[in-house]
Amino acid sequence: MVRWDMEISKDHPRYRSLVTRERMSRLVDEGIVAPTGLIAHGRGEAFDYLLGERTIPVADAAARVAAAHLLEASHPVISVNGNATGLCAEALISLARAIPARMEVNLFHYSTERVERVCRYLEAAGARDLLGRRQESRLDGIASDRARCATEGTYQADVVLIPLEDGDRAGALARAGKVVLAIDLNPLSRTAAESSVAVVDELTRAVPNIERHVNELRDRPEERRALISDFNNARNLERMRKAMCALLEPAPNK
Amino acid sequence: MVRWDMEISKDHPRYRSLVTRERMSRLVDEGIVAPTGLIAHGRGEAFDYLLGERTIPVADAAARVAAAHLLEASHPVISVNGNATGLCAEALISLARAIPARMEVNLFHYSTERVERVCRYLEAAGARDLLGRRQESRLDGIASDRARCATEGTYQADVVLIPLEDGDRAGALARAGKVVLAIDLNPLSRTAAESSVAVVDELTRAVPNIERHVNELRDRPEERRALISDFNNARNLERMRKAMCALLEPAPNK
Repeated sequence: MVRWDMEISKDHPRYRSLVTRERMSRLVDEGIVAPTGLIAHGRGEAFDYLLGERTIPVADAAARVAAAHLLEASHPVISVNGNATGLCAEALISLARAIPARMEVNLFHYSTERVERVCRYLEAAGARDLLGRRQESRLDGIASDRARCATEGTYQADVVLIPLEDGDRAGALARAGKVVLAIDLNPLSRTAAESSVAVVDELTRAVPNIERHVNELRDRPEERRALISDFNNARNLERMRKAMCALLEPAPNK
Repeated sequence: MVRWDMEISKDHPRYRSLVTRERMSRLVDEGIVAPTGLIAHGRGEAFDYLLGERTIPVADAAARVAAAHLLEASHPVISVNGNATGLCAEALISLARAIPARMEVNLFHYSTERVERVCRYLEAAGARDLLGRRQESRLDGIASDRARCATEGTYQADVVLIPLEDGDRAGALARAGKVVLAIDLNPLSRTAAESSVAVVDELTRAVPNIERHVNELRDRPEERRALISDFNNARNLERMRKAMCALLEPAPNK
């Protein structure tokens, strides 16, 4: 058995990122994060470099619109996968309480055993009334097992928050007429394009940020509706792409 | 034990990428690829999206300069890690023969057992005279185990090709006065910035491409020297960044 543990020097310029990487890697051994989930995490890291690893104002504005949708919903659901669980279980549970919304476990790499592991991990972190152990319904428009979902969860939801979801499922949720709120660092992804609101931000920053907006908007129904009607996701994504270019593109005076 | 295997539909828009992902994930079980190597692979995938997953002319030009350096070297070495082995062992072996250059295994997550596994994997793919099982020397300027290297390999090399190397080691090689040729999809990385020539391209495209240039330049010493003296890595990286922006930035008429 090869051991992968390593000491990470606090002097390393990417210390925080390396610690998260090591933690995500360990969660593969626990069956929480899928190995290909690590690859997805890496893609996110790259796009986060292009944001300077911070929440930019455009992303914060989208987070506020997402919060407005979550409060306006009659049946809001947060869909959680392995990476979301590994990165920020506590923050997702806290957000679900604040709205309040149901949480449903939906895995890209599905097995009953893995669902159980992820559910137990979330319950140990404080989650209650989790959905996802039973998946009695199916979304139209996806051939794979990922069509499966909980009847009381995403199937009946009018608003679904999908942190780190794949494009097939995001598209199927949108075609089912749901308001899809994505958290996705790739502004070119199908998930970002197919969602009603794409929050292009790193998950551990975005989720507490959405919760803050939920608390601020709780007693402001008019502002919520104005935020929702004024929002244009294509324009949001265009602005995010411009912001990423600003960091990537060399300064004109060079 | 959670099983992660899954069927991938050939209709999936990212079929080729998904197949590579599954293969890299399986190589973690074999001890060839490190779990955090999967995260690094994901970062590369994201930057490759921004290239349209193709070798752009600027990257091809850098590959030609890298080939010129490899042919001009008196002691060229190709340094190989777990990801490089998993992605393109055969192409790296073929390139080493074409130059000819020595190959040395250098792992970020080092253990004698893992070095042995990677060496055996490469030998099964046809590698001969591999260096790296013994690491008798140390590079200055790195505190960690990654300072270690083979005396006959990177320690004595005048030109080192580093596919997918980390920034610390790339910097130490450069400070040791070596010509550092990097293959790295991130044009903002320290590895790309600290190298003499950064080929910003996906490894399985870049390595055969460098070999093609080696064959073309073999009998053209004057062209080789002109290529080397005309090359400016900062300008190369600037052009790569501009090219990535072109895909990221929305079209002006939108």
